[in-house]
This record gives sequence, C-alpha cells and structure tokens, in this order.
Amino acid sequence: MAVGDASFPQMPAIPGVRLGTAMAGIKKANRRDLVVIQAPAGARIAGVFTRNAFCAAPVTVAREHLATEQEARYLVINTGNANAGTGDEGLRDAHATCAELARLTGVAAEAVMPFSTGVIGEPLPMERLLAGLPAALETLGEGSDSWHQAGEGILTTDTRPKGASVTLELGDATVTINGIAKGSGMIQPNMATMLGFVATDATLDQALLEELLRETADRSFNCITVDGDTSTNDACVLISTQRGPAVVGDEAIAIFRNGLQRVMTDLAQAIIRDGEGATKFVTLQVNGATTRQEALDVAFTVAHSPLVKTALYASDANWGRILAAVGRAPVTDFDVTKVTIDLGEIRLVEKGGRAPCYTEEAGSTVMAREEIPIRIDLGRGEQSATVWTTDLSHDYITINADYRS
Amino acid sequence: MAVGDASFPQMPAIPGVRLGTAMAGIKKANRRDLVVIQAPAGARIAGVFTRNAFCAAPVTVAREHLATEQEARYLVINTGNANAGTGDEGLRDAHATCAELARLTGVAAEAVMPFSTGVIGEPLPMERLLAGLPAALETLGEGSDSWHQAGEGILTTDTRPKGASVTLELGDATVTINGIAKGSGMIQPNMATMLGFVATDATLDQALLEELLRETADRSFNCITVDGDTSTNDACVLISTQRGPAVVGDEAIAIFRNGLQRVMTDLAQAIIRDGEGATKFVTLQVNGATTRQEALDVAFTVAHSPLVKTALYASDANWGRILAAVGRAPVTDFDVTKVTIDLGEIRLVEKGGRAPCYTEEAGSTVMAREEIPIRIDLGRGEQSATVWTTDLSHDYITINADYRS
Repeated sequence: MAVGDASFPQMPAIPGVRLGTAMAGIKKANRRDLVVIQAPAGARIAGVFTRNAFCAAPVTVAREHLATEQEARYLVINTGNANAGTGDEGLRDAHATCAELARLTGVAAEAVMPFSTGVIGEPLPMERLLAGLPAALETLGEGSDSWHQAGEGILTTDTRPKGASVTLELGDATVTINGIAKGSGMIQPNMATMLGFVATDATLDQALLEELLRETADRSFNCITVDGDTSTNDACVLISTQRGPAVVGDEAIAIFRNGLQRVMTDLAQAIIRDGEGATKFVTLQVNGATTRQEALDVAFTVAHSPLVKTALYASDANWGRILAAVGRAPVTDFDVTKVTIDLGEIRLVEKGGRAPCYTEEAGSTVMAREEIPIRIDLGRGEQSATVWTTDLSHDYITINADYRS
Repeated sequence: MAVGDASFPQMPAIPGVRLGTAMAGIKKANRRDLVVIQAPAGARIAGVFTRNAFCAAPVTVAREHLATEQEARYLVINTGNANAGTGDEGLRDAHATCAELARLTGVAAEAVMPFSTGVIGEPLPMERLLAGLPAALETLGEGSDSWHQAGEGILTTDTRPKGASVTLELGDATVTINGIAKGSGMIQPNMATMLGFVATDATLDQALLEELLRETADRSFNCITVDGDTSTNDACVLISTQRGPAVVGDEAIAIFRNGLQRVMTDLAQAIIRDGEGATKFVTLQVNGATTRQEALDVAFTVAHSPLVKTALYASDANWGRILAAVGRAPVTDFDVTKVTIDLGEIRLVEKGGRAPCYTEEAGSTVMAREEIPIRIDLGRGEQSATVWTTDLSHDYITINADYRS
C-alpha cells in the first residue's frame, strides 16, 4: 500500500554528479542493491546521521571520513544488509568496501563514504558486494535515468523510488537541487531508517552547507514518523559541486534554503506516503505552543498513538483517542479547556470536549480521504510544528512480522 | 486472544465489602455493565488516578469526593461509556449518578465515588444508568460469586474477568486482600485504561494505606504497557474495612506490603495477558542502570517499539530490533559496548553486537514460547526495573480499527 502519486520526477543533470548501480545479489538476486555516487573534484559534502547509540559500522566510518581533510569523492550504498550490530567485523567490512572502491577509482580510502541499509546483525556478504563495484562504476551517469535507477537501488521495503528536484533562479543564473531517498518503516525523528542523497550545482561554503542541511533536515526528515522506531543507519548527505552560481547574501541564501527545504520535505513526505502498510497520509499541525519542542512533543505523542493510528486506518473520526493522546503529552500545567482540535475543515474538540457543532457525518467525510490534516491548537503560546505520519494497518503487521528487516 | 491461565480465583469474603451488578443496557443489552461496591461504615479508602490532562468527569468527581471529610461508602462503576471529553454535562452526569445512589442508600452524595470506562465523548445514557442502580443494590453480596460478577461487570474489550486474592498470616491473625481489575488496550504507565478495586479487612491508618497503594501501583499497574496509550479514566482504589488485625510495626507492614504487591502485580499481569490481540506475555527486565527511571525509560522504549512487538508476534528472535530500540532510549553517555541482552537463557547481544555463542535455533526455541523474558543489562549502575508487555498482532489492529472505544 502507499498513498498518492507514485511518479518519479525528471531530474536535470548536475554536472559532475554521476550515479551508477549494480545487481550484486547482496540479499536477493536480480534487483539493484548497490549504488555508487561520484562527486566531482572540489565538491563539498555535508552529512547528518542517526542519533541511535547503536549506530551502524558504515555510519561510524562515513562520519570519520567526512571529518578528515580528504575531500569526499564517492558514496557507496548497499541495500539488503545494514552492517549494524556487527561489531569489529562490521567496521573492517565498511573500511574494506571503501578501500576497494578507492583502489578501483584511484582516490584515497578516506574519500569514500559508505552507507548500508537492510537487515541488522548479519555480516555483509563482502565477496558479492566487492564484486559488484566494477559494474556499478561502469554505469555511472548524470542523466535522469541514472538518478531514477539509483533511487531504486537504495530501497528496502519501499514500494517505489523517491525523488525530488527543483530549479531555482538565483539572479540571472539557474541552480538545480536533486535528491533521492529511501525509507518506509522504522521511521521516526532524528533520522529514520532513512537514507537521503541530495546534490546541487550551487556553490556554498562548508559552514553554510552544513547549517542548511541541519536546518532543513530538522523540518523534514526529523518531522516524520511511521512507527517511532529509529534506525541505526540513518544518514542524509548534501553534495555541492561548487560549479554553479554562488549562494551569497541574505536573499540568495533564502531562495536556496527554500528550494532545499522543498526537496527535503518532498522526500520526507514521499517516505511517509510509502510508509509500511500506509493507507493514509496524515499531517499533524500543532499550534499555540509555548515552544517548538512542546509543539513537537504533542505532535509526536499523537502520531505515535496506536489507537489514533488504528482509528485513522478504520477512517473512524474517533476524536476521543486524539484528545486522550494530547492529554498524555509531556506538557506541564496543561489547561485542556483551551485546546481545540480540527479535522480538516471540521472542528472536533473545544473547551475540553466535543465541539457542539460537530457531527459524525462531517467527521466521516474527512476521514474517508487518503490525505488527512489534523490541527491541534494548545492555546498557550505562539509556537508551532508540523509532523507527518501514517495510519497503522494490517499490512504494517504483515510486513513486519514476516520480513526480517 | 489471550495468554495463559484464564481462571478466576476463589475469593474469601471480606466482611462488610459487598458487590452488586446489573445489566443496565448502557451500550449493549444482556451484559453486566453496572457495578456497585459497598464499603462498611468506618472503612478507609485510598485512590490513585490517571495523569492524563484530559481526565474524565468521574475521575474529577471521585477525586473531589475522596478529598472531603465524608467517608466513602459506595463505588459505582459503569462500563460501555467513559463519560470523558463530555465537558460540563459529563460532570453533571457524574454528580447525578452519585446523588441518585446516595438517595437510594441514605448516605451523602460525597460518600459515593463514580468510575466509568468505555467509549470517549458520548453523553452517559443517564436514564438507563440510573434505572439500573436499584437492581445492582439488590444483588449486593460478599461471596466469591459477587466478586466474580463484579469482575465481569467492569470489562470492556477484555476477554475475561481478572481477580487476585491473598491470605496473609499476621501474627496469630489472618488478613485477606481481594482485588478485581479491567483493562486490555490503551494500557501504559501512569495507569492504563485500567480500573482496579482492591479491598482488605486489615486495619491501616490513612497515611499508610495511601503510601502502600502508591508504592505497589508504581511497581504493578504503572509498569505495564500494551500500546503506550494512557486513558482518561484510570483509577485504582484500595478499601480497608478496618475490621481485621492492625498493620503496625515494620514486620507487619512488610508482610502486608508484599501481599498487596502480589495482588496488584497479579492483576496488572492479568491485564497484559489479556492485552488486545496479545499472543505473547513479555517480561522486560532492565538491570545495571544508574537510576530506576533510566531502567524504566529503556524498558518502555523497547516495550513500545512496534518493530520489537511485531517480531515477538512473529516469534522471530530479531535481536537487531531490540538493540536498535535500546539504542534510541533517552540515556545520556550511553556506552553500548557494555550492554548485554538475554532472551530467556540465551545470550543475544554483547559488546555492541550479536553474542558469538548465539544461534538462530536457540533464539527461536525461546521465541516460540507464550511467555518470553527479555533481560537487558546496561552495565552502568545498580538500578533495575521490570515492565510487562504484549506483542502487536493482527488482532490488535482488528480490535482497534473496528471497535469504537
């Protein structure tokens, strides 16, 4: 199941960013499961990574390599195996993967960043993985098809590849931002089982690149949740080839930030639309909070409630469950009589109870839709936050009870 | 579905504590849905209540009445309707219920404590509820059957009544503690959609009664979770008739505390065994924490993980999911290389990865059981906590997508 439009967008080339894929048979035969992304010499790269204390070996190594003086030139991503919970052997395997790709391409091992996703706790099938690298390098290309195939090559339980692209006018010049992402379960704030690879031809200095990646990730990938589980492997990387127009000055930075946010949010929402077993795409907007964190706390409490999620699955406007979830959010001195809850255009709750004008019929009309907006106003302050989530369906259980992920 | 023994124990009478039930047709016909519990004159009562900010009208009124000088003489419990999210009308209905029972029995309205459980946000069907009160009073009795029928009369989605009883030797005298409880979904710390009614003939002063109820609830009802949702209506009440032997002195208090803990823990575990859709009963013990709260945080993070819960449902020893959940628990400066995870007698994880001696076969043997103990040692300190939970099954979805609770 998945919600909404499944098409993969046309992606303009970003000169110097080349993507190649191979079928290495890491877990299953006959599927793209190995991706190499090449950045041109002189490119800058920023990354954000999982905050799970058990981070996977490739995350450790990617972080290390990103921190060296050596400029990053290659990303190598395998699906089918997360190389997580694999101890010292896992670190050796991640290093060996970088070393082999470095040998094949004539760069330093520290110029390669590794990424893995899939089953936790099993050793990487190194022989097959390494054997696949030459094939992935042979297919390196800049075109839209290369982006599409790379988008497919990083999937696990996803049902479709996820891509987003924007073209921005920066003065007289044009800037492109392309991105691909994967993820459909184990999705929650502070990165999901989520990999995102975004590239732009714009020229940005390293500090700005890192700041904009953090900022936009906080309002996209860190605002989605399928099931509250955080992966050991999450990462999102932003490559700037430094070949296009410079992003300098408040106006240019604002334009670029908006464009980047659009790509990041599109990718994050695509992950939710393809959430495991998802039949609904739910936008939870919390307003009237005293801090953004408070708004996020309420939004995630509702988004993680299995009772709210099963009611969404049933298209049942069971506002009592939403109210109960709001009521148990970690908010101090909570005056519930000031809370309002709206379902789409319908007022559900006010003054601590069902709104007088509410009818089951009106609620059911909204709940029958695939895309459901829920707006909660706490009546305490000026801050807000938006979180995107799915319902909880039989298919979620089937996928996660049957799939060793 | 439910796990383990379904029998209801024999309950010795506690002189003066009488229970009556009626079929008032509050939501469905032909089921016990109204219960009255009578405490004798001179009894003392302690209560603990939901911390949900949207607490239901009966919780507000029960708290108010408990705080008055008036001694509590009657509890009135209806199922089928939670009288929650019902605003001022709900408060009026809860007060009217107390007033009518007071009128029928000749006590003050403040001597009656109301409790409700069931669907949120619909007005109480007052006419049917009040009409049922005389019938419930007519059946008041002290015997085991009365406890059993009251146990049935408070159920919602539960598949079976839950009772526990202990008899203690206190010097030359004998003390009895009986309890009944309900709850099977929306179960989480700080009270679940949980009602518990416990009574004893022992004589305790008010401060000790309250302290022991809080203490034992913290290690029983506040340590269970089905789905992380907290109800608006949770309450647990402890009645002491003051007619039996006095609980005075360290030794007597220790004996009584242990007995009360046993009743409370038995009832809490019975709720989990009957958790919505439960096919597994899971004991999560976290040791080696620096504080009890830290141990609880880790235990609940694992217990709420849908990926861990679906793996348990599938009897899949997917230790990677347990490890990932432990890794995202809110613990600072977490050295994951010190963590060990045991599944029953099998070592799953040590030194940040799969234990060398672990085999899938050994893991599967434990996972095939109905009762699964998981022991997590954080290697940081001396504190521990135990939490009980269920798996997440297709039946959970079916129950909560179909039932308007």
